[in-house]
Amino acid sequence: MVITEEIQLHTQGHTDIQDITVQVAQAVAESELEAGIVTIFCPGSTGALTTIEYESGALEDLRQVLDEIAPPDRPYRHHLRWGDDNGHSHVRAALLGPSLTVPFAQGLLTLGKWQQIVFLDLDTRSRSRRLVVQILGD
Amino acid sequence: MVITEEIQLHTQGHTDIQDITVQVAQAVAESELEAGIVTIFCPGSTGALTTIEYESGALEDLRQVLDEIAPPDRPYRHHLRWGDDNGHSHVRAALLGPSLTVPFAQGLLTLGKWQQIVFLDLDTRSRSRRLVVQILGD
Amino acid sequence: MVITEEIQLHTQGHTDIQDITVQVAQAVAESELEAGIVTIFCPGSTGALTTIEYESGALEDLRQVLDEIAPPDRPYRHHLRWGDDNGHSHVRAALLGPSLTVPFAQGLLTLGKWQQIVFLDLDTRSRSRRLVVQILGD
Repeated sequence: MVITEEIQLHTQGHTDIQDITVQVAQAVAESELEAGIVTIFCPGSTGALTTIEYESGALEDLRQVLDEIAPPDRPYRHHLRWGDDNGHSHVRAALLGPSLTVPFAQGLLTLGKWQQIVFLDLDTRSRSRRLVVQILGD
Repeated sequence: MVITEEIQLHTQGHTDIQDITVQVAQAVAESELEAGIVTIFCPGSTGALTTIEYESGALEDLRQVLDEIAPPDRPYRHHLRWGDDNGHSHVRAALLGPSLTVPFAQGLLTLGKWQQIVFLDLDTRSRSRRLVVQILGD
Repeated sequence: MVITEEIQLHTQGHTDIQDITVQVAQAVAESELEAGIVTIFCPGSTGALTTIEYESGALEDLRQVLDEIAPPDRPYRHHLRWGDDNGHSHVRAALLGPSLTVPFAQGLLTLGKWQQIVFLDLDTRSRSRRLVVQILGD
């Protein structure tokens, strides 16, 4: 069985990190499947998926390390060529990855207690985002 | 067909990197499925999955780069807020990701000869860890 | 339904980044499946998969950040022990990950318009690479 759903988000960019756990859990519940995997995918090259403890300290720590890995305020060749200001966004998204796969069993995500599924909008402006949520299972 | 198993580990923390290839290969063999994917998932926000050549030099090199990306000995907002000493653990886990998906065919993992599946315990203390190993296939 | 295919590539190493979107889309089309996931996996510990906008500026930006995270020209314990010159390759591959999962629906990959699937050869020499492309779906 394959079920393909979408999540719609409004994001602020600049490493806006949004907790989408409730939406993903709801898609799994509505599928009425017992066990399988849910894949969350960002169609776009300036967004990423991962998990983290969703508390503001840890989110700020992650933002700071991303600022160090790919600083927003230095010249990027992507800028120089296209006049875009989001060269660092592309680098960060490629490093983090556009996809996350989470198993579920007895109809429930197998997340830890302090672990949330997050979408990172790494672009430099607010955007409407559409994420693909696809469920495979029995 | 979906089969959900678990792996139990005792880990030391501080980027303890453990080779779990044998346990994953065994779960695939016992499933008696011919082809499909196995997803290994860490329920928890201070662990991560990836592959590496499991030899002590490469493991030390990876630990050193993780120490540079998110140093253990600087202030993290997660520390300041909660008194936890594992702010760097959360950042590293979010960057590496909690999930790994490996295809298998003819009942065998499609790993390279010098490539092992590893769990990284990025926390700052020894822990008992439970990983989810879920197999989807025919 | 599970279908296991392969992609053959000739790569130059030194973070050669190749666009494999057409080959993956073709494997999905030939499967004649309607919806599901395609997993692209690198059997080997010096290659990685991700997505990026495949234009030379963004590719150079990503290469530069990888050069900063794991510089090619410093001593690695993997070198010291085995005489290999690719310690940085192993570290980068472990950070980026060997696997990418992309959902498809109505027979089409759910990629964004400016988003391509890429293989990164992080090794230090030209190689023949075989990637596993496995499709699960209905």
